[in-house]
Amino acid sequence: MAIHNRITELLGIEKPILQAPMGWIARSALASAVSNAGGLGIIETSSGELDNVKREIELMRELTDKPFGVNIAQAFVRDPNIVEFVVANNVKFVTTSAGDPTKYTSALKEAGLTVFHVVPTLSAALKAVDAGVDGLVVEGGEGGGFKNPRDVSTMVLLPLVCSHVNVPVIAAGGITDGASMAAAFALGAEGVQMGTRMVAAAESPVHQNWKNAIVEGAETDTVFLNRFSRPALRALRTERTTRLEHEDSVSMMEFGAVKDLYFGGDLEASIALGGQVMGRITAVEPVATILDRTMREFDDVMRSLHTKYGA
Amino acid sequence: MAIHNRITELLGIEKPILQAPMGWIARSALASAVSNAGGLGIIETSSGELDNVKREIELMRELTDKPFGVNIAQAFVRDPNIVEFVVANNVKFVTTSAGDPTKYTSALKEAGLTVFHVVPTLSAALKAVDAGVDGLVVEGGEGGGFKNPRDVSTMVLLPLVCSHVNVPVIAAGGITDGASMAAAFALGAEGVQMGTRMVAAAESPVHQNWKNAIVEGAETDTVFLNRFSRPALRALRTERTTRLEHEDSVSMMEFGAVKDLYFGGDLEASIALGGQVMGRITAVEPVATILDRTMREFDDVMRSLHTKYGA
Repeated sequence: MAIHNRITELLGIEKPILQAPMGWIARSALASAVSNAGGLGIIETSSGELDNVKREIELMRELTDKPFGVNIAQAFVRDPNIVEFVVANNVKFVTTSAGDPTKYTSALKEAGLTVFHVVPTLSAALKAVDAGVDGLVVEGGEGGGFKNPRDVSTMVLLPLVCSHVNVPVIAAGGITDGASMAAAFALGAEGVQMGTRMVAAAESPVHQNWKNAIVEGAETDTVFLNRFSRPALRALRTERTTRLEHEDSVSMMEFGAVKDLYFGGDLEASIALGGQVMGRITAVEPVATILDRTMREFDDVMRSLHTKYGA
Repeated sequence: MAIHNRITELLGIEKPILQAPMGWIARSALASAVSNAGGLGIIETSSGELDNVKREIELMRELTDKPFGVNIAQAFVRDPNIVEFVVANNVKFVTTSAGDPTKYTSALKEAGLTVFHVVPTLSAALKAVDAGVDGLVVEGGEGGGFKNPRDVSTMVLLPLVCSHVNVPVIAAGGITDGASMAAAFALGAEGVQMGTRMVAAAESPVHQNWKNAIVEGAETDTVFLNRFSRPALRALRTERTTRLEHEDSVSMMEFGAVKDLYFGGDLEASIALGGQVMGRITAVEPVATILDRTMREFDDVMRSLHTKYGA
C-alpha cells in the first residue's frame, strides 16, 4: 500500500516519515538516505555552522533527486540572512523551531517555500497557525533534544493540537515504528518525525558508542535538563547528565567538547541528546530498512485494528 | 458497534474502559456510575480507610449489578489481611499497584480473582508477568497520581510492554476520549483507564473547585514532584505544588489537609493529583456521556483510518 495524504502531497514524498534535524547529525549522509528511501531528510542548522550547512545542501543535490528540507533553529541561527540563504540554495521545505513563528514565516512563504513550525504546546500551535504556516510539527516531551521546560507528552499534546487546527500535522516525540506511527495517525497526525531512531541509523555520522548507548539503553535512561530554565532538553543518562539533572539551570557551556562526543565517542564529553524511545530501539539499521519496516508495520496495525474493531 | 476482546471478556464488561482508583474519589458514587455505563468502576484503598472502603463495596452491590473492581495500593495498605478482605467482600477483579507483584498475586489467584498489576516500566511489567498476573495496567508518566520517579510516556511505554508480554494490557496515562483510546489500541492495548477525566465527571465526589481547575487548566498545568525520591507524583500546578516542584524530596506531610481540598475545595490545602490530559478536558459531564462519546469517537477513528489508510 501507499499513503496519500496532505503531507505526502505537500512535501512530494512517498512515505510520510521525516528525519529530525539533529545538530551536526542531520547532514547529507543521513538526510539523503532518508529522502532516497522515500521519506524526507532534513538538514540541520542548530550547529550554527552555516558554511558547512551550505556545503551539505549542495551535497544533497548530488546524493538525491528526491525532496528534502532544511530546519531553521531560530535560537541557534542568529544570522538575519537565513531566509536569503535557504532561498538562494533552492530549498523548498523548511521547518522553523525554537523561536517566534512570526519572524520568518511571511518571508519564506513569499519566496514560495512550504513552512512548518515546530510546537511544544497548544498556545504555540495557535500562534504558528496565526503566523500563516502550512503545517505543524507537534513535538511531545518524551522526545530528545531541545524542549519546552513544561514538557507535554505526545498522547496528550498531539490530539489537543489536532482538534484545534486545520493544517496538516507531523507528530514527533516517541515515534520509532509502525505502531507509534499508527497511534499518531489515530490522534490526528498525517506524518511522523523520527529523531533518536535516526541517530542510531547506519547512515548516521555519530560515533558507534552513541549508537550502542541507544541500542542498549532502557526507556527510563533519559534525563530532562533545565526544567526551570531555557532551553530545556532531553538527553541520554550519563554521569554528566545525572549530575546536571539536579540543577535548576544548566549552562550551555555544559555541552563542552561536542565533537569529542559526536565523532570521538566519549559519552561524558558532552550531552548526548536523545528521547525515551531509545528503550524501543534494539539495533543499528540502514534508513531504508527502518522506513520500509515502519510502513509495513503501519499497514499491519491498520489491518489488525480493522479486523478486530472495524464496523 | 460493540467491542469484544480479552479485556471485555475477562472483566465481563461491555466497554473496555476502566476508571482509575483515585484515593477518596473512587468510591461507590463514581464507580457505580462507570460500571452502570458499561465500563468498570474500581474502588480505591489508597486512602487507607479500609472500614469506609468496605462500606463502599457494600454500597456497590446496591448501586449496580454490573462487575466492578478494587485496587490494592500496596504502599498505602499495610494491613496484611487485605487479601482476606477483598475475598470476603466477594470482589472478583483486583488491580494491585505501588508494590511488589509477588506479594499478593498468588493468594488472590488462588482465591479465584482476576489480578492486573499496574506497571510504569518494562522491567516492572516482566516481573508482574512472572508473578502470574492475568494482565497489566501500563501507566504512562503523563498521567496523574503516584508515579515512578523516572516517568516514561504512554507512547513509548505502552508499545514497549505490549511487544514483550502476551497478557492483555490496559493503557493508562493521557487517555480521555476515543482518539486516545484508538491510539492506545494501535499501540497494543485492549482497554484503557481514565483518571483525571473521571475526577472531573459529574458523579465524582470532589469539590467543584477541583473539577473547575481541571476544566480550565492547560496541558502544561501539571507538575511532577519527588523526581529524586519516592513516591513521585503528578499533580495540578498550584502555588503549593509550584514551590514543591523545586524540592528533590517532598514529604507526604505536604498532603496536609486532604479533605479540605477534596471536599472543601481549597486547592492550596493539599496536592490535587492530576494528569496532563486535563488540558483536553473542557466540561464536567456525566460518566455515561463520557463513555458513550468515547466509544462513538473510537468507532469514528477506526472508520476514518480504514477509509484513509486501509488496504
